[in-house]
Amino acid sequence: MSASNAKVEDTTTTFTGWASTGSLPLKKFSYHPRPLGPKDIEIEITHCGICGSDVSTVTGGFGPLSTPCIAGHEIVGTVVKAGPTVFTRSATLSVLVALLIPAVTGGFADRLRVSSEYAYKIPSEIPPAEAAPPLCAGITTYTPLKHFGAGPGKRVGVMGIGGLGHLAIQWAAALKADEVVAISTSDNKREEAKKLGATKFVNSRNEEERKAARHSMDILLLTSNDKNTDWGELIDYVASHGTLVLLALPEIPTIAVPPSSLLMRHVSIAGSLTGGREITQEMLEFAAKHNVHPWITTMPMSDANTAVKLWLETIWCDVAESVVAIVVAVAGEPVMPARK
Amino acid sequence: MSASNAKVEDTTTTFTGWASTGSLPLKKFSYHPRPLGPKDIEIEITHCGICGSDVSTVTGGFGPLSTPCIAGHEIVGTVVKAGPTVFTRSATLSVLVALLIPAVTGGFADRLRVSSEYAYKIPSEIPPAEAAPPLCAGITTYTPLKHFGAGPGKRVGVMGIGGLGHLAIQWAAALKADEVVAISTSDNKREEAKKLGATKFVNSRNEEERKAARHSMDILLLTSNDKNTDWGELIDYVASHGTLVLLALPEIPTIAVPPSSLLMRHVSIAGSLTGGREITQEMLEFAAKHNVHPWITTMPMSDANTAVKLWLETIWCDVAESVVAIVVAVAGEPVMPARK
Repeated sequence: MSASNAKVEDTTTTFTGWASTGSLPLKKFSYHPRPLGPKDIEIEITHCGICGSDVSTVTGGFGPLSTPCIAGHEIVGTVVKAGPTVFTRSATLSVLVALLIPAVTGGFADRLRVSSEYAYKIPSEIPPAEAAPPLCAGITTYTPLKHFGAGPGKRVGVMGIGGLGHLAIQWAAALKADEVVAISTSDNKREEAKKLGATKFVNSRNEEERKAARHSMDILLLTSNDKNTDWGELIDYVASHGTLVLLALPEIPTIAVPPSSLLMRHVSIAGSLTGGREITQEMLEFAAKHNVHPWITTMPMSDANTAVKLWLETIWCDVAESVVAIVVAVAGEPVMPARK
Repeated sequence: MSASNAKVEDTTTTFTGWASTGSLPLKKFSYHPRPLGPKDIEIEITHCGICGSDVSTVTGGFGPLSTPCIAGHEIVGTVVKAGPTVFTRSATLSVLVALLIPAVTGGFADRLRVSSEYAYKIPSEIPPAEAAPPLCAGITTYTPLKHFGAGPGKRVGVMGIGGLGHLAIQWAAALKADEVVAISTSDNKREEAKKLGATKFVNSRNEEERKAARHSMDILLLTSNDKNTDWGELIDYVASHGTLVLLALPEIPTIAVPPSSLLMRHVSIAGSLTGGREITQEMLEFAAKHNVHPWITTMPMSDANTAVKLWLETIWCDVAESVVAIVVAVAGEPVMPARK
């Protein structure tokens, strides 16, 4: 949330968060929120996930910021105030809600005012801290799996076992896909993939394993990519009539796709980005019902800088096996991972 | 059909056709066919379409041939002999059948022996000469339109109004798509597109028309492409959640696809190539029921060289408005187009 964007301020109220001025460290920053609009809710934030796009935002990776800027868009909290036309079931006062808000929004803070349209009711089975990562990493993977029919009779591949991938594997297993194949560039995550529900593991740098997995996946989710991504190799994993789904926008303007498999084997290339309101609520209920848990590390909000540093050192570099999602907790929850 | 490929020959029988020895002109050539196998039929050929791949074959565009080689794979004829285990309804003696045979097969000839599995019964409403082009150009366009749900509620685009495109427009119109948009690089085919059933025409070199057509097609069939094809421009025509379908294999090893629309607008890129037995028979019946007619120019088989030359000068160069398919007729049908 950028103070300079707020045209009208509620000067009787002050929220405090951890703001970026364009680079790290984040600094404590207070601001007056916008007046509570008719459809708005005010949230007392209990948790906020750290997503790659938050890190890119606060470190200036997405370009110049309107600073000071409070990032954080995987937000969990309690509704403490609601505007007069808020009647949604999810925004009843004192109900715990999860919010996924497009763009930079202010979750690394004590409170937030937003439209009630961004709020989802968190099923009681889901611990609050675990409701944060599904909102972004979860819906990004759940939506295409549902859209492309993951379930019995389908073989699902997941390339990249991080924040997105570790949820994708759990969704695919819970959806009862015939096979759930985890693909990674190293053996580091072989055991973890199995714990998450993968039925197979492919080290993409092991030629033998890669060849054995050719044409074997009806849906292949690609959780990340870079300028060295070999699109032909990826398409080669996809079964005839299957679909390769891009979940992360490549930084390069065009990708080099070998077209022969599109015609000869009827492979499609698709993309997907988050999901709509209905499927997001459905996903939260599915997670509760099927015991899907993000693997999180929680830290107090006051350690926001440590959390971002940990994110950069572990998740970004893909070195730590078990750190796949970090959630900062205003309430100062234990630092231990909530692993199941 | 290459004589050198036949391991066992029926020396009591001689078929005669127009063969390539690697370049034009085609020369009259006689050969002994294979013995009539248990599932084989012998066809007295009445017509054979000239497809781009036949021309590429006989001119050496697909690489060195096993010569002499008789091309032609959109074949129409009467069954005159059948092996003992041929019981398919389509292969009853003296029934007119249409055959689409993978690879180079020998349709520019008087007779042919092939497996009865390649034969389709031609509905009585379809004149024999008109049954040839649907087998290749028709099924290549009909299959993806059906697969991607062309019909009420869907807007179909067809890029390239030639052999494939002129049938694609007719299929889409008969399937009652909400819109059938013909896209061409010039205004030459504007009137013809409307006659075929297009509800809109876009000259892709007219920036205003191109812009007006942005994001407007749920299914866009791409009937041809080359190294200068602008994939971003094509994707730009496709509506959110729509599909761009490649129907011709690019000659370049990779195509440069801008990925942003795949994620941001959920556009998919797919490919399609001919179709299976069931849908091919369905297509012929659909063509009969819905009055879909290929626009053909027929010439006697003895003018095969003239026909190939006409193909190269008109269809290949995309200069003649009305020449979109050429069929050579053994029976010496009139040279006039069978236009409706």
